[in-house]
Amino acid sequence: MFNSLYLDCLNSAEQNSIQENVMKLFENSTDSVKAEREMDEHINAIVKNFLRTINSSSDIEISELIENFTNSKFPSKTVNNKTYVNKLYEQVVTHSIHTSSPRFIGHMNAALPYFVRPIAKLMTAMNQNLVKTETAKALTPYQRQVLAKIHRLIYDFPEEFYSQHIQNPQSTLGIIVSGGTIANITALWCARNASLGPKDGFTGVTNEGLAAALNCYGYNGAVVIGSSLIHYSFEKAADLLGIGAHGLIKVPANHKNQIDLQALRQTIRKCRAQNQHIIAIIGVAGTTDSGGVDSLSDIAHISQEANVHFHVDAAWGGPVIFSQKHRHKLAGLEKADSVTIDGHKQMYLPMGIGMLFLRDPKKAEVIEKQAPYAVRKKSVDLGKRALEGSCPSTVLLLDAGLNLIGVKGYEFLINEGIRKTQYLANCISAMPEFELLAEPDLNILIYRYIPDSLKENATKGKLTKIENEFLNRFNHQLQKDQRHAGRTFVSRTTTNTTRYGQDIPLVALRSVIANPLTTEDDIDAVLNDQIKIATEIVIR
Amino acid sequence: MFNSLYLDCLNSAEQNSIQENVMKLFENSTDSVKAEREMDEHINAIVKNFLRTINSSSDIEISELIENFTNSKFPSKTVNNKTYVNKLYEQVVTHSIHTSSPRFIGHMNAALPYFVRPIAKLMTAMNQNLVKTETAKALTPYQRQVLAKIHRLIYDFPEEFYSQHIQNPQSTLGIIVSGGTIANITALWCARNASLGPKDGFTGVTNEGLAAALNCYGYNGAVVIGSSLIHYSFEKAADLLGIGAHGLIKVPANHKNQIDLQALRQTIRKCRAQNQHIIAIIGVAGTTDSGGVDSLSDIAHISQEANVHFHVDAAWGGPVIFSQKHRHKLAGLEKADSVTIDGHKQMYLPMGIGMLFLRDPKKAEVIEKQAPYAVRKKSVDLGKRALEGSCPSTVLLLDAGLNLIGVKGYEFLINEGIRKTQYLANCISAMPEFELLAEPDLNILIYRYIPDSLKENATKGKLTKIENEFLNRFNHQLQKDQRHAGRTFVSRTTTNTTRYGQDIPLVALRSVIANPLTTEDDIDAVLNDQIKIATEIVIR
Repeated sequence: MFNSLYLDCLNSAEQNSIQENVMKLFENSTDSVKAEREMDEHINAIVKNFLRTINSSSDIEISELIENFTNSKFPSKTVNNKTYVNKLYEQVVTHSIHTSSPRFIGHMNAALPYFVRPIAKLMTAMNQNLVKTETAKALTPYQRQVLAKIHRLIYDFPEEFYSQHIQNPQSTLGIIVSGGTIANITALWCARNASLGPKDGFTGVTNEGLAAALNCYGYNGAVVIGSSLIHYSFEKAADLLGIGAHGLIKVPANHKNQIDLQALRQTIRKCRAQNQHIIAIIGVAGTTDSGGVDSLSDIAHISQEANVHFHVDAAWGGPVIFSQKHRHKLAGLEKADSVTIDGHKQMYLPMGIGMLFLRDPKKAEVIEKQAPYAVRKKSVDLGKRALEGSCPSTVLLLDAGLNLIGVKGYEFLINEGIRKTQYLANCISAMPEFELLAEPDLNILIYRYIPDSLKENATKGKLTKIENEFLNRFNHQLQKDQRHAGRTFVSRTTTNTTRYGQDIPLVALRSVIANPLTTEDDIDAVLNDQIKIATEIVIR
Repeated sequence: MFNSLYLDCLNSAEQNSIQENVMKLFENSTDSVKAEREMDEHINAIVKNFLRTINSSSDIEISELIENFTNSKFPSKTVNNKTYVNKLYEQVVTHSIHTSSPRFIGHMNAALPYFVRPIAKLMTAMNQNLVKTETAKALTPYQRQVLAKIHRLIYDFPEEFYSQHIQNPQSTLGIIVSGGTIANITALWCARNASLGPKDGFTGVTNEGLAAALNCYGYNGAVVIGSSLIHYSFEKAADLLGIGAHGLIKVPANHKNQIDLQALRQTIRKCRAQNQHIIAIIGVAGTTDSGGVDSLSDIAHISQEANVHFHVDAAWGGPVIFSQKHRHKLAGLEKADSVTIDGHKQMYLPMGIGMLFLRDPKKAEVIEKQAPYAVRKKSVDLGKRALEGSCPSTVLLLDAGLNLIGVKGYEFLINEGIRKTQYLANCISAMPEFELLAEPDLNILIYRYIPDSLKENATKGKLTKIENEFLNRFNHQLQKDQRHAGRTFVSRTTTNTTRYGQDIPLVALRSVIANPLTTEDDIDAVLNDQIKIATEIVIR
């Protein structure tokens, strides 16, 4: 059936034309340089237009959009790049989300500074692979340096510590990964392997597996503990690492969206009583739901007492340490054994940049692997200690951020996000149409719309379960309609840490403010758009 | 100590200047557009120069290079982008590896077509996140379509199959990941979870963990089986998934670098006799070492008989299916339950594009996770079934490759790589200075240098262990010296599938030809460079 795809089915003139076309794509000839420049200009125009659009998306229904993408056959002919880019523009770009719109304030896609575009081009052109120095000569020590700088910002160890470890191939201050999920999984992988290492003839979990490890250590099982608000990447970690969802113990969160410390202590006691090995305790700095920050100092203290690895998922909140004004919210972060931070969130960089930092530079030894063709034992190759293999040089974007936005620039961005979120919170509190569902710690805020008929009961906090269920349906519909209209955007979530208690989950509108171009006017526009849409909603 | 980093320590004029600087990075103003264009031109010039360099790298020693990267302190001031890019050029770009040089024929970094640079810019500018449709509206169905096309090329199911699954949110034909390692881990994760699912009141390994699963199913342990030449990502997978290195059984490979089928059958029988659960059997299409391709049809047959998941790691070799002439080497791939292919290898695309394909569109159900703020149960969000979370739109690069290089263009690239590798093999066979260590299946080739004194014994295949150890040291030094000189590059590995038998591992020079600009002259230049360098080597 695919016969028509192959060169052998073509006559030699056709074959030559294919060859010529391909070679032109790779050559450094004048023709190729010209073709690239034309394509670049074409893309520049599309990008410029895309970035200037205020609406958050087109209003086409997804069901309709899908109709354009139901062809599973390969194009039998290549097209020229102009035709291709035009089609791409029409079918894909036009119906993409304007994540950089100042009125798209619903997800963790930050707006981006312009320099990421030229730097991304450089990164693509150089195409280094950080897995080994033979494909990333200067970038290997450069990446170690960038990670050491952020490590120092978190842990603030003395100069000698950094001189000793920054370029020591046996030390790992941090690992660059594709995102927070891989960082979180890597952290728990390190914690599991370190805590179930070699002992009395047993060669460690990494060699003999989890069942044998539990057996040798005499445990009935193994667990990881965090609040009910930890990111779903921990479900993946628990599953992958073989402890299963039941091994991921979720302690209730309080109304401030922080782990209940007493419940945490009880859980630890219970695990110990049941002879369950505790692999790690998780703190969150910026829950995905509502930006809540656990009391990290307290968890650090509890973890230390229990002698358990303390991991902080600061994928969202980590960069708050750039802010003198707000960094106290993350107090205790410096006591964490490992910390996840995403570059593509509050470091205002493109998708695909996650980081894991390790307090103990030797910790990652327990996940080290070797291969005969690379990452050999004594090598300086970064791929020795990493969950992933081939790794693009996203560090170029990170370093550009640290230099061109700069630490003070990041401080400004963090402060602004929190300030504007406070503005949004004030608006919501002042407007009878809305109810604030949690005081924001950072720049994520959850709230909901309250129709006229329920305002009085809502204000008193006396809505019945049935009324709350009605509000859930209403707000669900409101978020969908707002998304569909495409003028403004917030996301939605479900919270059960409100005054209505755990058993009444509330559907919430969720705003994330991480765009310096979002003004108070934009925030007003989002709320007014919701009020307008709400008047048209009919819920039975 | 970091006090000077913070805004609060600045006077208000300084604060304003920081704010102004940051806003300029994000604004759509004329000034910002101009600044971006200037930076873009600056980067263009650097890229052009970088891509035209023939030498594979600079000749600076890594120990010397490291001296530039020992500062763990943040820059206290931001710099302008011109100064920054100049410094980046000097410190990093100059000492990066020219992975696109036609004489860099040693690693799996393919040369890149020009369109990846503008497309990477578009991808960066749009900054969609494929984890959910709310941040990737058109890209979600678009990605499903691209994956379906490649799925069809592998499996060639009838049209109805694709109509049914291509846009069905409950079906997963493929997953885009950051690289082959994550694809391989995901495949084994699916295989483990599917084969240890719910049973008689047991709710499955994903809930109850591996120890409970083995216990419930009555197994003594769990294993994955592949040849001794499987990629080291499987070591990571075995460790992560809780079966440990001992659970990764490596069957010897024959002199063609293929798994020994009889030994595989024996291993299966032995596992069964020992009541070890077999999670998956791995076939390799293009070993990292030498490009060997397992006899996939036979392994498929054996796996089917044993009722075990058959995974093929075709990270390197997968795109050989584009070639009418060579695709027979991958016969049996279409019987695999899962297939890994890397876009950043033989699809000639930049780092960070891996893919996993699944024969059964329901297979990935067993790794599905949900969260209240996204990837909800019934949603069409791709992040529901993925090891990673946030995911950049690298699919734009993939699709551009399929359209602008095209399937016939890929066929040409594959054919050329193999043809030129055959040329290299012929040269090596004809030159007394070298010994071919394996007949190449694809475009990876291993060989070694033989100094004068050992030529006679080498030709007869009668080198002693001591002589081979001398050759190992010699070729090790040769590869290092060649890398350091920086004019040409091949990598090195260690092989133990030669005529000298398993117990005498041989250090091999390893060439990978994946650059359409590499000519026969370049290949000659690499060999002549080695001969020249070899004359200067003194080994005791």
